[in-house]
Amino acid sequence: MNVGGTPYRTIWLGDDGRTVEIIDQTRLPHEFVTVELHTLDDAVVAIKTMQVRGAPLIGATAAYGVALAMIADPSDPGLKTAAKTLLDSRPTAVNLRWALESMAETLADLPEDQRVEAAYEAAAKIADDDVESCRAIGKHGAKVFNDLAVDLNKAGAALNILTHCNAGWLATVDYGTALAPIYTLHDSGVRVHVWVDETRPRNQGASLTAWELGQHGIPHTVIADNAGGHLMQHGRVDACITGSDRTTGSGDVCNKIGTYLKALAAHDNNTPFYVALPHSTIDWSITDGVRDIPIEERGSREVTHIAGLGDDGEITTVQVTPLGSKAANAAFDVTPARLVTGIITERGVADPNGAGLAALYPEHAQEVSK
Amino acid sequence: MNVGGTPYRTIWLGDDGRTVEIIDQTRLPHEFVTVELHTLDDAVVAIKTMQVRGAPLIGATAAYGVALAMIADPSDPGLKTAAKTLLDSRPTAVNLRWALESMAETLADLPEDQRVEAAYEAAAKIADDDVESCRAIGKHGAKVFNDLAVDLNKAGAALNILTHCNAGWLATVDYGTALAPIYTLHDSGVRVHVWVDETRPRNQGASLTAWELGQHGIPHTVIADNAGGHLMQHGRVDACITGSDRTTGSGDVCNKIGTYLKALAAHDNNTPFYVALPHSTIDWSITDGVRDIPIEERGSREVTHIAGLGDDGEITTVQVTPLGSKAANAAFDVTPARLVTGIITERGVADPNGAGLAALYPEHAQEVSK
Repeated sequence: MNVGGTPYRTIWLGDDGRTVEIIDQTRLPHEFVTVELHTLDDAVVAIKTMQVRGAPLIGATAAYGVALAMIADPSDPGLKTAAKTLLDSRPTAVNLRWALESMAETLADLPEDQRVEAAYEAAAKIADDDVESCRAIGKHGAKVFNDLAVDLNKAGAALNILTHCNAGWLATVDYGTALAPIYTLHDSGVRVHVWVDETRPRNQGASLTAWELGQHGIPHTVIADNAGGHLMQHGRVDACITGSDRTTGSGDVCNKIGTYLKALAAHDNNTPFYVALPHSTIDWSITDGVRDIPIEERGSREVTHIAGLGDDGEITTVQVTPLGSKAANAAFDVTPARLVTGIITERGVADPNGAGLAALYPEHAQEVSK
Repeated sequence: MNVGGTPYRTIWLGDDGRTVEIIDQTRLPHEFVTVELHTLDDAVVAIKTMQVRGAPLIGATAAYGVALAMIADPSDPGLKTAAKTLLDSRPTAVNLRWALESMAETLADLPEDQRVEAAYEAAAKIADDDVESCRAIGKHGAKVFNDLAVDLNKAGAALNILTHCNAGWLATVDYGTALAPIYTLHDSGVRVHVWVDETRPRNQGASLTAWELGQHGIPHTVIADNAGGHLMQHGRVDACITGSDRTTGSGDVCNKIGTYLKALAAHDNNTPFYVALPHSTIDWSITDGVRDIPIEERGSREVTHIAGLGDDGEITTVQVTPLGSKAANAAFDVTPARLVTGIITERGVADPNGAGLAALYPEHAQEVSK
């Protein structure tokens, strides 16, 4: 998507065809800084310090990290060390493990002098496949929203879509998941306006989503996470869309904390609530998300302290709570399928239940437990 | 309630019986500073700069402001000027207008040389009446919660109550409304723990509620506004309680933005959701809160910027959104009566509907429109 009028992906190769370049997302939204990765260690640091984040982008970065490692040491021990070091950089990231296994499989049987070239090819394919998957989500989602937008646009009004957290192109290689339909609509001339949930405590909406929408020229308004219900009560939200970190075979959606509250409000106001996700987030073996998905509890400092741009132009952290007050910080919650209108994947739009998902993914139909 | 072990009200008289003292609430939670008010202008500044906030406390401060004005000029024009200046300091505050009208009525027919003494007496009565009202809310609410707490406490667990925003003693003269039952329970030896919603964008929960609970020694945990639904899904909230800025004759509750989302989550999880309020917030003529209560839209800077304590010990403001991103900031939302379990007032606990409120306030039964 565009940054200041120039199209970018979140990860790309430099002119030498070897250097890997990324956006330092820890500096957003206040500074747009790109970083060159030359070595395995550079890639590990980028993942560890969250210069790159979002499951698909972490996977792509790890794949390119293997390619960088092959330049320095294409031996079997070199490949093994690269995979292990990268896996340890973010042990819970499912896409990271998948990308590393895929790279190892591609390279294992090749002679050392072919590994660099093959690694770059395989990493590029992982990145391109992600772009294609997101582009397809965008296409299917745009079709759904376009039906809602036609009459509004005719009447001179924009389609108002509310989103929570950041499931935009910054979390993937391009397009994003929840934001892909919005970019697709906007680029095809549909008038759309996005309500951006701030998304406390890490503020991914206020920082990343607002930034990427603004850079691409999409009208948007940041709101406190508390505001969405009020806006829906007054007919100011035409649809909601979020991403998913993990989806059950029955259509329950585990996503950033607070998603459930917006889904409740959407349900109470007959506002459509869509979830966009690549099929890789679906865990076919689980059917009760609230019961069976463990929720990560993160450090309390994310709640008690907030970082932002100070008057002096420096990024500064301030404490908002009294000294001595504890804080709790569950990172995700589960939205039961009954509150979801439809699940948008790279293959189409599924009803939020086992039958709906199995219809799109017949090869997994056997796995859906009862 | 206690501050560092010493009982305080939010407004009191100095040893000379004339100086009015308050807590500078703009410095909380990072500094506890008291301020002396000696003149009408001091009182106006305290209200305008929000050193005092919360409808009942603003009313009491205005009443004492009239008393201070009478020392300087007890004439009829002096009384008129005092009332007008104080009213203009916060034109939308209903309690402010009511307190000023009550003071004017008390003083109008008195000779000038009796007005100072009478004004201090009347102001003290306004403050004491508020304390009595809050104490009664605390008593009725504690009875409700005590029934929930008995078995939990027997099993060695605390009663977990979630609250949103600050409806504590800092918003009143003492006890508070939503927090009054919690203070009453705690002081009677019941084990209680409070989940404190941060309450973006102004953070009244993270700053004021956390501070006053901490100072009184009540266990509490600050959470992002996004977290409450998840906690309720997992049985970690036994009841919710909030205040109300305006209540319809049918039991709809207009309170801080985000209250509606917590009420939806409580309803979805069979968690009791109570609202505590003095009868002065009830507008008997309205029955559809979502349709008929206008919602104040505040400045966007409250969303885009956050103040807190910097590393240097100074209160610092940082911007969290990108330059150029707009923000919207509705200050309140409306929770429909169907999501409320009970309305706790100084007279008892009412069912959240016209009949329930009319049973507690038969003198208003005629006013409840259909």
